[in-house]
Amino acid sequence: MSLALDRAAQDLLFREARTANTFTDEPVTDEQVQAIYDLVKYGPTAFNQTPLRITLVRSPEARERLLAHMAEGNRAKTASAPLVAILSADNEFHEELPHLFPAFPQARDAFFTERPVRESAAAMNAGLQAAYFIIGVRAAGLAAGPMTGADLEGIRKEFLDDDHTPLMVVNIGRPGPDAWHPRSPRLEFDQVVSTV
Amino acid sequence: MSLALDRAAQDLLFREARTANTFTDEPVTDEQVQAIYDLVKYGPTAFNQTPLRITLVRSPEARERLLAHMAEGNRAKTASAPLVAILSADNEFHEELPHLFPAFPQARDAFFTERPVRESAAAMNAGLQAAYFIIGVRAAGLAAGPMTGADLEGIRKEFLDDDHTPLMVVNIGRPGPDAWHPRSPRLEFDQVVSTV
Repeated sequence: MSLALDRAAQDLLFREARTANTFTDEPVTDEQVQAIYDLVKYGPTAFNQTPLRITLVRSPEARERLLAHMAEGNRAKTASAPLVAILSADNEFHEELPHLFPAFPQARDAFFTERPVRESAAAMNAGLQAAYFIIGVRAAGLAAGPMTGADLEGIRKEFLDDDHTPLMVVNIGRPGPDAWHPRSPRLEFDQVVSTV
Repeated sequence: MSLALDRAAQDLLFREARTANTFTDEPVTDEQVQAIYDLVKYGPTAFNQTPLRITLVRSPEARERLLAHMAEGNRAKTASAPLVAILSADNEFHEELPHLFPAFPQARDAFFTERPVRESAAAMNAGLQAAYFIIGVRAAGLAAGPMTGADLEGIRKEFLDDDHTPLMVVNIGRPGPDAWHPRSPRLEFDQVVSTV
């Protein structure tokens, strides 16, 4: 075994963690979300951009509005999850850079005055942070159900604004009965890793 | 404490883990890379696409070719890291989908016949996997130094082909002297998380 991470943590985060399709009724509290954020906020991003934004869909009325934009196959589980989060990229993240990257506060004006450059950087780095968030949900002992099967543009208009690009919707909770599909195969090491 | 993950694992992966800027000479073995892959391959992607590809730059000649494409500020650390990996997205991932997603083997032809759709999906999902990989490097007790400050198009031409889009370059190894810059601030919970 070449890993420093103990086996229980490996199982919790990767080996036994699965995308849940059903959930119990046990609520996910704001304290749990705070604990998740306080862990995964440290995950690295370029220039410490940290463009990920998280919209917790808590009210029944907001949940209904979200369901209308989900792909049909994702609707039932999104309706029943204790908590649903919309993850988005803030394309105006650069306004915070003088604070977030004190080593080079000029980064905002040196690199990020063009919106297309910001959108590209925000998508990449918020994508990294979305993965950290999924890992964080698992670190809290909860199951995540990330979904891109949705009308993301519709979700933007419904919940966000032109400065934010939705990346995915994540169901969060304790897994319920028959929560798992069979685990799909993974690529072999030699299909993924090459050496030059 | 609302997390199930033990404190030592939290520290290893997030709280005390840092982007390293110097490294010791201790080699990173193929066995370590295999152990990292065997952990992080389980991280979730849409339709189990798993489009991340990893090119290990091991030969001195390949390292020299890579250095020519790195931003000047990244060159010295990329020259001295025990191992350097190019992470890329395979835009032809869909060819593996009938094997990777047996629940719906038609996904390849139902959703991914158009190259722009594939490029977008590959960028998003390989981005998630790049984050899993960074976490996996840390799980191996090593430090990662992810970098986007590089001529990525040049790296594609030098090391990859038109079907692969480079995402970042990652230095990997044990941290050396003065490896860390001061940790930059993070956004407050209320700046990132909102509720509807």
